[in-house]
Amino acid sequence: MSIIFSFPGFENITNHIASDLQITRGKMEIRNFPDGETYVRLNSPVEGQQVIITCGLDNPDHKIMGLMFFAQVAREMGAKSIGLVAPYLGYMRQDKRFHDGEAITADIFSGLLSQIVDWLVTIDPHLHRHKKLSEIYTIPAAAIHASDHIADWIKSNIARPVLIGPDAESSQWVSDAANKASAPFMVLSKVRRGDRDVAVSLPDVAAYHDHTPVLVDDIISTAHTMIETVAHLKALNMKPPTCIGVHGIFAGDAYNRLISAGAHRIVTSNSIPHKSNDIAIEDILAAAVATMIRE
Amino acid sequence: MSIIFSFPGFENITNHIASDLQITRGKMEIRNFPDGETYVRLNSPVEGQQVIITCGLDNPDHKIMGLMFFAQVAREMGAKSIGLVAPYLGYMRQDKRFHDGEAITADIFSGLLSQIVDWLVTIDPHLHRHKKLSEIYTIPAAAIHASDHIADWIKSNIARPVLIGPDAESSQWVSDAANKASAPFMVLSKVRRGDRDVAVSLPDVAAYHDHTPVLVDDIISTAHTMIETVAHLKALNMKPPTCIGVHGIFAGDAYNRLISAGAHRIVTSNSIPHKSNDIAIEDILAAAVATMIRE
Repeated sequence: MSIIFSFPGFENITNHIASDLQITRGKMEIRNFPDGETYVRLNSPVEGQQVIITCGLDNPDHKIMGLMFFAQVAREMGAKSIGLVAPYLGYMRQDKRFHDGEAITADIFSGLLSQIVDWLVTIDPHLHRHKKLSEIYTIPAAAIHASDHIADWIKSNIARPVLIGPDAESSQWVSDAANKASAPFMVLSKVRRGDRDVAVSLPDVAAYHDHTPVLVDDIISTAHTMIETVAHLKALNMKPPTCIGVHGIFAGDAYNRLISAGAHRIVTSNSIPHKSNDIAIEDILAAAVATMIRE
Repeated sequence: MSIIFSFPGFENITNHIASDLQITRGKMEIRNFPDGETYVRLNSPVEGQQVIITCGLDNPDHKIMGLMFFAQVAREMGAKSIGLVAPYLGYMRQDKRFHDGEAITADIFSGLLSQIVDWLVTIDPHLHRHKKLSEIYTIPAAAIHASDHIADWIKSNIARPVLIGPDAESSQWVSDAANKASAPFMVLSKVRRGDRDVAVSLPDVAAYHDHTPVLVDDIISTAHTMIETVAHLKALNMKPPTCIGVHGIFAGDAYNRLISAGAHRIVTSNSIPHKSNDIAIEDILAAAVATMIRE
């Protein structure tokens, strides 16, 4: 027997998974006291059940205590196991000590999360130096891919696409999506000088002037990389590009700045709730959850 | 050998403790990435040292990850022990399951903090059903009291005080401070109907019309209790009261609303940085730290 709960903002995904897998939809309350502390209450019985919680881990510091409180009270109420559906998984970037004295937050956060839940499912985590989630997560952790859905979206919405990865790290997403969409692709080289300071090299794009450029990356956060890339494509007289991110964090006014920079359209999956969401990933999450709760 | 670090906002307290105890003042960086994740770097060597970190735990969800990252990197760099100076300790209120399914956050948070650090020192934690920190903290945890300093402040600043505790829970703070200030005191009874809905009973205050009422409580958060109490004292033609809180959280516009309600003055200790801080507690923190690092 399984029961699935949702953190605020993930109700649609949660309802879809519950419906796909024919599992009970649990009720919970989570709110903040005026002093900023978090309150959690489970309003559905969980004794003897496999408990699943949907909670995307963008803005992870704001959610981790609530998630810990949820998991602990579920255990105290007799839950058999606790699984996490985190459409977006945070703290994947600081995966080494770049400078002496730095906390390797990817390792510390994954260690904490491995204590809190018994398994997790996520979409396209930002794996870089670590190649698999199992290198930092001690619990079963499934990383599923949105590339099929991105390829389908491109095929349905863009007539003559050329896929563009804004940097070398993005090549894993863009090459996969391009192959699946049967479209050409190219990957730019990026030099990062700091959180907000990124320079992008110019590739040879003359052959693709009659194509619609489609930028593809895993995360759109500050959007600085995409903004730079959009500016370069403009300088090269390419058509206004469509920008696709698996995960749309859009820190501050990133979305509007990317539109102002010349993006024709910005599209993301619904891993993080945002008006740009147009690629639904509930079905692949549900399929991954099914493998975790099967016994 | 000991070294003390500070989270942002606690530099003055930290410098005072370092100076009092003649210990090294360490340097660290802590900041948020645009996506809300926390970055921590220690810039001073800690190998073989007793490491102390000052980090008040108001708004605890915003600080706990940074504290965990700090402690972990300090351990990886060879720290002998990690001690926490938390002038204010959060998550002390939900100390039982008032309704089925509620997370007992006092227990879960203290369990987490007991994993992160090796000892802690705090001022007047909100102990209620739990009588001692050792009931929920598995590490050495010293709860020191600001009542001497509050009594001294009252004696120096108020000519004919009558101390008033706004509710039964406050009697522990107000009776202690009143005895030390050689002043009369009374405690009102409060009925709490919700986070923001509190009714206060009327005591007989006729005997104190020529005194200055001094409201004393441990925490001023929403200030609703104090605002109600100030209104009642006004209705009874008492002088405008001075309001003293050990810890001034002042959620939202609580400070201005308490002034508007008729408080003559609001005074807090510097456990949480705020313009109302007028009672310095560094010396008692330093004394408590000294007992923890003594070997």
